[in-house]
Amino acid sequence: MGATSAIEKTGRIVIIGGVAAGMSAASRAKRFDPGAEVVVFERGEYISYGACGLPYVIGGDVTADSAEGDDFERLVARTPEQMRGRGIGVRTNHEVTGLDAKAGTVTVLNRAAGRTSTEPFDRLLIATGVSAVRPDWAQTQSAQTPLGGVHVLRDIPDGQAIEASLQGANGKPPKRACIVGGGYIGLEMAEALHARGLSVILLEKGLEVAGRMLDKQLQRRVRAELEAKGIEVRCGTAVEGLTGTGHVTGVQTSGGLVRADLVIVAVGVKPNTALAKAAGARLGKTGAVAVNLRQETSAAGIYAAGDNTESLHRVTRRKVHIPLGLTANRMGRVAGVNMAGGDATFPGIVGTAIFKVFDLGVARTGLTQAEAEALGLKAVSVDVDSTDHAGYYNDSRPIHVRLTAEVGSGRLLGTQLVSPRHISVKRVDVVAALLHRRSTVQHLFDTDLAYAPPFSGVWDVLLVAADKLNRKIRET
Amino acid sequence: MGATSAIEKTGRIVIIGGVAAGMSAASRAKRFDPGAEVVVFERGEYISYGACGLPYVIGGDVTADSAEGDDFERLVARTPEQMRGRGIGVRTNHEVTGLDAKAGTVTVLNRAAGRTSTEPFDRLLIATGVSAVRPDWAQTQSAQTPLGGVHVLRDIPDGQAIEASLQGANGKPPKRACIVGGGYIGLEMAEALHARGLSVILLEKGLEVAGRMLDKQLQRRVRAELEAKGIEVRCGTAVEGLTGTGHVTGVQTSGGLVRADLVIVAVGVKPNTALAKAAGARLGKTGAVAVNLRQETSAAGIYAAGDNTESLHRVTRRKVHIPLGLTANRMGRVAGVNMAGGDATFPGIVGTAIFKVFDLGVARTGLTQAEAEALGLKAVSVDVDSTDHAGYYNDSRPIHVRLTAEVGSGRLLGTQLVSPRHISVKRVDVVAALLHRRSTVQHLFDTDLAYAPPFSGVWDVLLVAADKLNRKIRET
Repeated sequence: MGATSAIEKTGRIVIIGGVAAGMSAASRAKRFDPGAEVVVFERGEYISYGACGLPYVIGGDVTADSAEGDDFERLVARTPEQMRGRGIGVRTNHEVTGLDAKAGTVTVLNRAAGRTSTEPFDRLLIATGVSAVRPDWAQTQSAQTPLGGVHVLRDIPDGQAIEASLQGANGKPPKRACIVGGGYIGLEMAEALHARGLSVILLEKGLEVAGRMLDKQLQRRVRAELEAKGIEVRCGTAVEGLTGTGHVTGVQTSGGLVRADLVIVAVGVKPNTALAKAAGARLGKTGAVAVNLRQETSAAGIYAAGDNTESLHRVTRRKVHIPLGLTANRMGRVAGVNMAGGDATFPGIVGTAIFKVFDLGVARTGLTQAEAEALGLKAVSVDVDSTDHAGYYNDSRPIHVRLTAEVGSGRLLGTQLVSPRHISVKRVDVVAALLHRRSTVQHLFDTDLAYAPPFSGVWDVLLVAADKLNRKIRET
Repeated sequence: MGATSAIEKTGRIVIIGGVAAGMSAASRAKRFDPGAEVVVFERGEYISYGACGLPYVIGGDVTADSAEGDDFERLVARTPEQMRGRGIGVRTNHEVTGLDAKAGTVTVLNRAAGRTSTEPFDRLLIATGVSAVRPDWAQTQSAQTPLGGVHVLRDIPDGQAIEASLQGANGKPPKRACIVGGGYIGLEMAEALHARGLSVILLEKGLEVAGRMLDKQLQRRVRAELEAKGIEVRCGTAVEGLTGTGHVTGVQTSGGLVRADLVIVAVGVKPNTALAKAAGARLGKTGAVAVNLRQETSAAGIYAAGDNTESLHRVTRRKVHIPLGLTANRMGRVAGVNMAGGDATFPGIVGTAIFKVFDLGVARTGLTQAEAEALGLKAVSVDVDSTDHAGYYNDSRPIHVRLTAEVGSGRLLGTQLVSPRHISVKRVDVVAALLHRRSTVQHLFDTDLAYAPPFSGVWDVLLVAADKLNRKIRET
């Protein structure tokens, strides 16, 4: 800002949604301009929590600090009281039900009091996240009296409802769980419910589990891990309905009836865009809210950030909708700074994702071979089976790396890893860093990666893969 | 190579030294030009082994495939027979004792037969590695009858000699070990001998252990780990001599006598440069052999690679002597291709190193704050104490990251990590990759690192450090 330019007053910043993006934005805005009024409306009871931790609370890997505490509340990073202490006006149980962009107001329902009010804003952030998809077959009985024992998992109340089912709130504790959907929520829940002693069957409509995340070569390994741990996996199985009266008793599928007294519906998410539409903000081809690098929507003074929002994929230079926690936090920070009069940009993502299912770690970044081909790129991949530590080291474990590059240019496009020592796949981050810096396979091969026998082979498996891919590129 | 240029015949390639660099060179040369004659002279019995694994064999983390096997031989990647099967003439127990660069010959002593011969070469690789430093005080008694129970650890015979001492070959099995030197060999041997049931005392001349590798802030944590595991550590303690007749009984130090019936001397290494000097090849300021990026020494037709050779530090653009296994392998590959008529270059290192001592992982890459300051760089560092997994995840462990950058430019200079889950410090590789690509702290902060609760916090500790360092740079 030049010395002669007028300082624009920030005015009233209103944020819709108080989880990852919303609270990041609120904190950043207040830090950037301590004089700004920042108000957050969160329709739920909790703010600023790690939704990615929900399956781990259910599985018993996250426990409250004290015996009286609610395990789910361990996911909460900051309470409304803490945020208010920083001068941020947090109003939980307040749902924004309407938006008038011209007037610069939102309509807010105080759910506890049942009262509606109109609240003005100078800058507005729409951080409304995503909702779990509930297919028609899951909408059994009526919305007022849904079938007991059927759950999605998006937020803390969803998790608490699953926990209540596990405790037998709907009758007796369940014994047989059916998980519908083999994406990572489904996979993580398979592990969690198995850990709780249930017999678990996982149904996937597609040909394999983790199908949207990995190439075929690696999908199989994920299923093998599930089956080795005693999860029954049925792929190519479409769900047609639920059975039961009052409480679920089974899932009707293209392959027959599956008995179950607990059903987790994990078939995907959809961005919550009603308020963005009401604001006149453009949606992208992905169906999520379109923004520029400053997180500005097409509607003046209105920003979007988080799971409801598109981001730029730095490898493809296309807009994508990949709702993940880190991305939401980053977008929120950028939006917060800009709403408070600063100038920040979100440089985009490279499609990194990671999950654990039982002992198996699974990670990816960039593009898979299938994704690259679908985009018309001439891509080539290699697969390497090696060990995560020196091969001769007793505690070494297998690791599989698939590495993908562009033919001709040698540009790195992506990698996928699986290993039965789950944290060994965190080396995906090396490729993520190189993708951000637009690198070639040779750049990866040249990298001075850390070596000692309890950490890797002298040639880390990523270097082995780069060497093999370099040769394949030369031969292609 | 242009279509009209004459193809130069490779002729006879002679390689002195058959461990990491030498055998990598031999394999590459033969692969590049299958018609070339490639001969390797190795003065020892073993070739192509992972010397970095030696402490782990002694500690019991590397064991032979069969009960009759020698645990040390598990470190051998390829036998002379296997290499001969690929058409590479490997001669073990052959020591090169002389070199006539003008004549293009080496003098070779067949140690088994006691015969000397003269061998011609067209291209020569000097891959003679380093020797352990043996200070005057360790040269007790005579070279013919050294004091029993006093060892260095560089190669398999050294390891086997330590094992023989542990088995009581010199009398009864030792009970008290004294390790002289707190670099990583010393630290790894402290763990190994502790695992073998010995009482261990470690002496370090400097103010702290791991002093050459880390800034002060992290050195202390390494010592704390040793002490917590029952190792007695005495820093600022110089060794003055040994006591004992026939077999060692103690170490005389600046702080008094330390009783010990096993002594490991781990006070550093020095490059074996006698043959390079005989060839008229220039040594660098570091004392190691100077080479260009093609691994050519200043003597025509003579190459050097491996622990005896300098390499280019990509962060400082200076020549350094940091003998490590991966670097040796890389140099060897480059030398091999070039000796066979190809054109390869070694782009250098960024100073990555990693080790484990008990449960603690320690890693670094680039420059420490102290190293940066010694080079006259205006550097700034931040320290972050966080967790390696999500803070709320029960199995999360502490991790400490120190991140260093250049004031003004924001250029990343290096990082140091310690964590009681040792493999969590392998994320050092992310910074190594970014250093290779000459990146800023902002580049690190922008990187889409993998997040799920069993792998990291939503902001990986590296991102937390980058954010903090960015702020500090702006304030500096």
